[in-house]
Amino acid sequence: MASHPHHDGAPPPLHRRPPPRVLLLRHPPHFTLLNRPLPDNFHFLKPWESSLPLHDFLSSADARSAEAILTSGGAPVTADMLRRLPEVRLVVTTSAGLNHIDLAECRRRGIAIASAGDVYSEEVADLAVGLLIDVLRKVSAGDRYVRQGLWSSEGDFAHGSKLGGKRAGVVGLGRIGLEVAKRLEAFGCAVLYNSRKKKPVLYPFYSDVRELATNCDVLVICCGLNEQTHHMINREVLLALGKGGVIVNIGRGSIIDEKDMVQLLVQGELGGAGLDVFENEPNVPEELLALDNVVLSPHTAVFTAESLSDLCDLVVGNLEAFFSDKPLLSPVLEE
Amino acid sequence: MASHPHHDGAPPPLHRRPPPRVLLLRHPPHFTLLNRPLPDNFHFLKPWESSLPLHDFLSSADARSAEAILTSGGAPVTADMLRRLPEVRLVVTTSAGLNHIDLAECRRRGIAIASAGDVYSEEVADLAVGLLIDVLRKVSAGDRYVRQGLWSSEGDFAHGSKLGGKRAGVVGLGRIGLEVAKRLEAFGCAVLYNSRKKKPVLYPFYSDVRELATNCDVLVICCGLNEQTHHMINREVLLALGKGGVIVNIGRGSIIDEKDMVQLLVQGELGGAGLDVFENEPNVPEELLALDNVVLSPHTAVFTAESLSDLCDLVVGNLEAFFSDKPLLSPVLEE
Repeated sequence: MASHPHHDGAPPPLHRRPPPRVLLLRHPPHFTLLNRPLPDNFHFLKPWESSLPLHDFLSSADARSAEAILTSGGAPVTADMLRRLPEVRLVVTTSAGLNHIDLAECRRRGIAIASAGDVYSEEVADLAVGLLIDVLRKVSAGDRYVRQGLWSSEGDFAHGSKLGGKRAGVVGLGRIGLEVAKRLEAFGCAVLYNSRKKKPVLYPFYSDVRELATNCDVLVICCGLNEQTHHMINREVLLALGKGGVIVNIGRGSIIDEKDMVQLLVQGELGGAGLDVFENEPNVPEELLALDNVVLSPHTAVFTAESLSDLCDLVVGNLEAFFSDKPLLSPVLEE
Repeated sequence: MASHPHHDGAPPPLHRRPPPRVLLLRHPPHFTLLNRPLPDNFHFLKPWESSLPLHDFLSSADARSAEAILTSGGAPVTADMLRRLPEVRLVVTTSAGLNHIDLAECRRRGIAIASAGDVYSEEVADLAVGLLIDVLRKVSAGDRYVRQGLWSSEGDFAHGSKLGGKRAGVVGLGRIGLEVAKRLEAFGCAVLYNSRKKKPVLYPFYSDVRELATNCDVLVICCGLNEQTHHMINREVLLALGKGGVIVNIGRGSIIDEKDMVQLLVQGELGGAGLDVFENEPNVPEELLALDNVVLSPHTAVFTAESLSDLCDLVVGNLEAFFSDKPLLSPVLEE
């Protein structure tokens, strides 16, 4: 293959320059979980190994030379942090959500962002459907019933409700929402959706999420968290979903007004909930722990052995692409 | 509509004759659960209201006049019982399985059988997939982790395994097996199957269940229980499925050699199990209660509010059809 001429002004190829400096906000848990070393063609800055507090570390000469930040959902990239790091041109996050990154400051500075892209979409959709089946068919509650010895002492367990025929409202019809919809169709559900704008799909579109809830038996929250979606699922929406309604949340905890949801579940004004995310993780509202119509998942939607491995490949691929002047593998494109 | 001429020898229409006598082996739980009365155009014989033991009741003049038996999975219809009831021409069971009915004696006598037919297929397939997601993604185990307060004290929960890409072996590709296959395809699984004979489908067929297990990550048991399938899933088949393999059983407990399965699960020679049925229900092997890679369901696969209602309609419809000389709605056809 012929070698491409090198354009003026573009950085030299990755293998001919000193390793780009990448600031880690924490050790990427994906690499740790798989016992996989970080790639050695980058120089990773690790604030937690410094004696300086993070704030001071970011002002050090070492940090100020960072050209990229690698972060994950739990570690925010704030405007203040970015202002201390003048050389940063790229933020790579291992998360699907972006609510921990100051997108306005990135936009202003022209900082590129790479996310988990599509790596997690199927995993998240799988868990969403699993949580829904679990709530409707009382799987976890049934498992508790058996483990507590109640099947032999108390007799038959309560019956559940059928998935087929349910009207399922998908809130946020992005990559994950589409995967959820595809799966629910195979179970005989009717899919409806709410999204910022109408999509080129055959599912009925509702611009108003409360109206969607009124017409649904089930709501599956698949959207991202931002100013518009914060507490979007409030008391009114949940009351519209109703006593027989089930809510599933695999987005972010704060998309639902958790206090309202808990109150309605306790009062029996909402039928059930399957929750992978919460407003104040890892703390889960005490009242939920006693409810049998609720399934509680410790934010595991994105994590499988397969997705962890794919994600490590993607992180390395994005860093290498960027510093080789190639397109990012999973760029976040502003709308 | 013109009335049909009445054939010689056929019984008179249902509304012109005394109510047919139907022996109940127990009160059909479906009617009880829905608080629905039994239809009044039949005379139901209720052995449990008699002072006689069942054996003697069956020899009474009352029972000997029974023309049909209505039973459910828990109450066997034996050859001995049928020999005491010379007038019986129909057995209606509320179950999908037939292992509690002496089929040979029915065949010899020309006794028609009506089963639950297709009423439960979707429900059972839904739970099969729900159990599989639960085992692979550790849903019930995660729910326990949260409820025990371990998420906040111990940190992140273990990650699971992805459903997509798994090779799923469906054992018994009848109505339920086909519904399971359809759902698993939507999750990106490759479907393979074992059945008595090859079916007109595109899924790869394995005539030998052990060979199927060797080529699968997951086995879903959807076949009926009979002499051929009793303990068909034995130690060899489970070892072929292997350490990473998962078994789901929504058929009957005795299709799996439960002792072998428990031993392999305890020893870590089998990856996990999602079980709705057991060999000695409602007793579940003690060893399983301590395992986190096992999901235990109290035989709820067929029960939803929707299926209970459909089943009551079907039972009444089958009785009415038979005694009106019309075809059964859900006949069991001998192969």
